[in-house]
Amino acid sequence: MYGLIGKMLAVPGKREELLSILMESNGDMPGCLNYVVARDPADENGIWVSEVWTDKDSHGASLQLPQVQAAIARARPIIAGFVEQFETEPVGGVGLPT
Amino acid sequence: MYGLIGKMLAVPGKREELLSILMESNGDMPGCLNYVVARDPADENGIWVSEVWTDKDSHGASLQLPQVQAAIARARPIIAGFVEQFETEPVGGVGLPT
Repeated sequence: MYGLIGKMLAVPGKREELLSILMESNGDMPGCLNYVVARDPADENGIWVSEVWTDKDSHGASLQLPQVQAAIARARPIIAGFVEQFETEPVGGVGLPT
Repeated sequence: MYGLIGKMLAVPGKREELLSILMESNGDMPGCLNYVVARDPADENGIWVSEVWTDKDSHGASLQLPQVQAAIARARPIIAGFVEQFETEPVGGVGLPT
């Protein structure tokens, strides 16, 4: 499995709109096992996304999906930046295949 | 929902043992929606744990469960420290209730 944990910043006042885009666009992504979108309670513009994929290629391929490309285009103007980005090697746990 | 994203360090040489303890002890935790255990590929002693709970109280209560108490006792000697800890407010996504 391949994992990503990242924090992005919305343009001030745009966090809820950005969350909506992230929530609408994460269905039907082949190889996506887990994709958790969360507010950062310590940062009014912060959003955490935690992802688990079957493999790194699935994640890469997802970026080319039409709904993801459309979401990226909508989201880009209201993303202020990416402030944390960690790759992980998921082992398992609750909500994942054993 | 209530979320936690954290990174801990195993005592050198003990990461696989610590991963096993984390994997064995995460079943049957009421209110736990997601609990992903992962290696940090950039740090041979690093382990990421990403958690989603129905609420903060469920997480707190889990720490008193017998299997969790037993796991903490076994894990403590081989944990070198906690280097990242972020609370989150999960909104939803793949692998979570809508």
